[in-house]
Amino acid sequence: MTISISALDSLVDTLVSSDVVTDPDIMAGYRQDWARDPDAGTPLAVVRARSTEDIQAVMRWATEHSVPVVPRGAGSGLSGGATAVDGGLVLSTELMREITVDPVTRTAVVQPGLLNVEVKAAAAEHGLWYPPDPSSFEMCSIGGNAATNAGGLCCVKYGVTTDYILGLQVVLADGTAMHLGGARLKDSAGLSLTKLFVGSEGVLGIITEITLRLIPAQPPASTVVASFASLRGATDAILAITRTMRPAMLEFMDKASIHAVEDAMKMGLDRNAEAMLIARSDSPGAHRTEEIEIIAAACRDSGADDVFVTDDPDEGEAFAAARRFAIPAVERTGSLLLEDVGVPLPTLADLVEGIAEISKAQDVVVAVIAHAGDGNTHPLIVFDPEDPDMERRAHQAFGDIMTLAISLGGTITGEHGVGRLKKAWLPDQVGPDVMDLTRRIKHALDPAGILNPGAVL
Amino acid sequence: MTISISALDSLVDTLVSSDVVTDPDIMAGYRQDWARDPDAGTPLAVVRARSTEDIQAVMRWATEHSVPVVPRGAGSGLSGGATAVDGGLVLSTELMREITVDPVTRTAVVQPGLLNVEVKAAAAEHGLWYPPDPSSFEMCSIGGNAATNAGGLCCVKYGVTTDYILGLQVVLADGTAMHLGGARLKDSAGLSLTKLFVGSEGVLGIITEITLRLIPAQPPASTVVASFASLRGATDAILAITRTMRPAMLEFMDKASIHAVEDAMKMGLDRNAEAMLIARSDSPGAHRTEEIEIIAAACRDSGADDVFVTDDPDEGEAFAAARRFAIPAVERTGSLLLEDVGVPLPTLADLVEGIAEISKAQDVVVAVIAHAGDGNTHPLIVFDPEDPDMERRAHQAFGDIMTLAISLGGTITGEHGVGRLKKAWLPDQVGPDVMDLTRRIKHALDPAGILNPGAVL
Ligand SMILES: Cc1cc2nc3c(=O)[nH]c(=O)nc-3n(C[C@H](O)[C@H](O)[C@H](O)COP(=O)(O)OP(=O)(O)OC[C@H]3O[C@@H](n4cnc5c(N)ncnc54)[C@H](O)[C@@H]3O)c2cc1C
Ligand SMILES: Cc1cc2nc3c(=O)[nH]c(=O)nc-3n(C[C@H](O)[C@H](O)[C@H](O)COP(=O)(O)OP(=O)(O)OC[C@H]3O[C@@H](n4cnc5c(N)ncnc54)[C@H](O)[C@@H]3O)c2cc1C
Repeated sequence: MTISISALDSLVDTLVSSDVVTDPDIMAGYRQDWARDPDAGTPLAVVRARSTEDIQAVMRWATEHSVPVVPRGAGSGLSGGATAVDGGLVLSTELMREITVDPVTRTAVVQPGLLNVEVKAAAAEHGLWYPPDPSSFEMCSIGGNAATNAGGLCCVKYGVTTDYILGLQVVLADGTAMHLGGARLKDSAGLSLTKLFVGSEGVLGIITEITLRLIPAQPPASTVVASFASLRGATDAILAITRTMRPAMLEFMDKASIHAVEDAMKMGLDRNAEAMLIARSDSPGAHRTEEIEIIAAACRDSGADDVFVTDDPDEGEAFAAARRFAIPAVERTGSLLLEDVGVPLPTLADLVEGIAEISKAQDVVVAVIAHAGDGNTHPLIVFDPEDPDMERRAHQAFGDIMTLAISLGGTITGEHGVGRLKKAWLPDQVGPDVMDLTRRIKHALDPAGILNPGAVL
Repeated sequence: MTISISALDSLVDTLVSSDVVTDPDIMAGYRQDWARDPDAGTPLAVVRARSTEDIQAVMRWATEHSVPVVPRGAGSGLSGGATAVDGGLVLSTELMREITVDPVTRTAVVQPGLLNVEVKAAAAEHGLWYPPDPSSFEMCSIGGNAATNAGGLCCVKYGVTTDYILGLQVVLADGTAMHLGGARLKDSAGLSLTKLFVGSEGVLGIITEITLRLIPAQPPASTVVASFASLRGATDAILAITRTMRPAMLEFMDKASIHAVEDAMKMGLDRNAEAMLIARSDSPGAHRTEEIEIIAAACRDSGADDVFVTDDPDEGEAFAAARRFAIPAVERTGSLLLEDVGVPLPTLADLVEGIAEISKAQDVVVAVIAHAGDGNTHPLIVFDPEDPDMERRAHQAFGDIMTLAISLGGTITGEHGVGRLKKAWLPDQVGPDVMDLTRRIKHALDPAGILNPGAVL
């Protein structure tokens, strides 16, 4: 596809305040997301939008000229959802950063480019809390969170992004803008279109505004850190905990990720452990003590070597931060293929053991971290990009792990989305009829297929 | 539309175990839902399905013969969503009543015909809880709850039906059956199709199986009952409560509904009050006492005449039951038009006062009850069906109240759905672009328009 310079000029002319970038050096920073797909394309231009109106103009222009558009938040995605395509536009929302918090209705109206951490901070100014907390919360945008239905550490108790989205403004492929839902806690008027757009990874429309539900500030939390000499011990403890109560966090790290984090942070994690759990209770008053005792006892009864309890929020947060740092830490040891497979909790042990077998069979390191309380794991496959055979084996392991998760009744992606890197496995999980239904809806909304082509479908 | 007897015979022949009813006396019971639309049609037949396979056969037959199909759960709907259409099939799920609870993953797989109360009971056997609790919980089906995204009394703290649905099996217009989502707490694989079907009121497909998320049993609750000499006092108290905490229930009754309930139940409600609030806390331990004190103080500070607190669950439940009985109680005083308007909380007082003005202007009694904590009200317009002018004024008030809610940034339906009775107002609320998008999705899934024609769209 070639678009003449004058056609691009006509786009620049229509935009009121947005930037159009064509400098190859700057554009290079917009070609990939965190998954660093080596096959990323070279875009025609990057538009840094400043308003919904400009996004409408971009989509009208793109429709007229049949130019693909890849929506982009902060580019922290792990599935290649925001990977640029050759000759297309990258439409970045990074400059759309306004937020208004209404403490009385406990809602916020926010533009997509604001970072998750900034949304949390704006809510906190009013004693309120926006719970969803992807480990990347300091670098991912709320628009990207909505588009991927992001999860995180507190989701085991507090739910995922979709549970906090009351309304959206979206721009369709043809440039039509519309409001879906709104600042109403309950609304059954018409189809659940708001929810349809959450997690749609940019293939149905551009999210230009989000109405969030906020809740009162989280009470102070106590934390349990337990280390185990066996994987089964840790997975037994997970089941024993979730069978009895709802922890406010329940995270898992295996030996390889403990070592990577300890190498980077030197905070005294137990290098002899096969697995570590970090769990939290934030229940009010004495109930927190009871819950922490349940968690600690479940760990001890499941054979934990060491169970450490702290009521100091900062100390507890240090362990959560260590867990959040696992992906960057493991990344220091090589290139990564990042998985996001989830399974029903009783099969978590089978998944983790199956991953160890795949790691052995393909002779690649697979470090496993997990939002264990909801069965969502992140096997991180490490390879040396200079070693083509290893890279091939890593890709084999990548597919084998998804196939394993599907065979256990699981999902290929619990929170990162399908993007481009996992789409080959989506039909295996959902089957041909669901794929057909997905295509029918995609076609109804974007008949020319210009929105994020190559992602999901 | 006329379908020959032999065509209907061919349907009967295809069904493995379902009943096909053509007896007019029995069919009469399937023509209307609780909204008792006098314009309900006369169906060709009622199919009482016993399996997903039979529902597929029904839909294939209906597609072949261009026969409209109205899905029906328990017929407790309040918007005419399950009203029969002339010459169509009513497809009832009442005989599909299986449930399997998995206490380890805290999920249940349930067929659509089981009643909400039966789902709750099956969960309770395992110490688990299915929260959504429409006032009709003893007579509405879980399939109907999913199809309307039903709310209820505990939703102010615990969310609505969609928050508890992890997966669905659906049958499309052409008879294709598919599973969406599943027993996984987090799943970002593909579009959010599960959520799209929740609240779709039978216009996109038939829900034949539901995978529910359950949570640990609700802790014992304490209850506050407060009566107010002024409406503003009650709405001030609502805002003072929700600004500080999340009650587990926050219900409102106005004078007319208090009187109707007291006439029917004789439990000693304060007949002099202009409004009554019933609020609950179910926080654990001492925190419950703190929350109850906040609620009681907010009521007193807002001018409550009488504030009654009980820690006895049965006594508290008696007041909740009184509130739930309000619709049947008001119904004893005349025919009803039932509203379900919701507004952002700060405008609740304006809505309630505006309703009083409309009641005066049209000279009809409007009793108001509300799930006040989430701004969702049920104005009940009472009229004498023998008085055509009064009936006309009641219908005028019905529309005026929806128009008022829309002007306050609200919704025409917080939880009952649009059905047939509110669809004329849907475009006023959502606008032409959202209507167009809705039609595009409907057309993509049901091109011949045989699924619940006349509902929503
Ligand atoms: C170290 C690390 C840890 C992480 N941990 C977590 C975690 O715990 N949980 C989790 O869920 N994720 C996690 N992620 C993944 C990532 O941060 C999330 O997927 C996040 O939601 C992406 O947001 P973004 O703004 O960076 O989106 P991008 O990467 O820019 O885009 C993501 C997808 O959304 C689309 N998109 C973006 N904005 C819009 C818009 N406005 N309208 C329409 N489509 C849009 C893009 O086209 C793309 O398909 C992690 C990532 C890293 C690097
Ligand atoms: C006294 C009273 C109090 C009520 N209180 C509340 C309340 O507090 N909160 C609340 O939300 N509602 C309330 N309702 C309304 C009603 O009970 C709910 O809307 C309920 O969800 C309807 O369930 P049902 O099984 O009776 O569905 P039906 O009335 O049979 O059908 C409702 C709609 O769902 C569709 N449908 C039903 N089953 C299926 C299926 N399997 N697949 C696809 N579509 C289907 C129908 O076509 C129709 O459009 C109340 C009703 C009464 C009579």
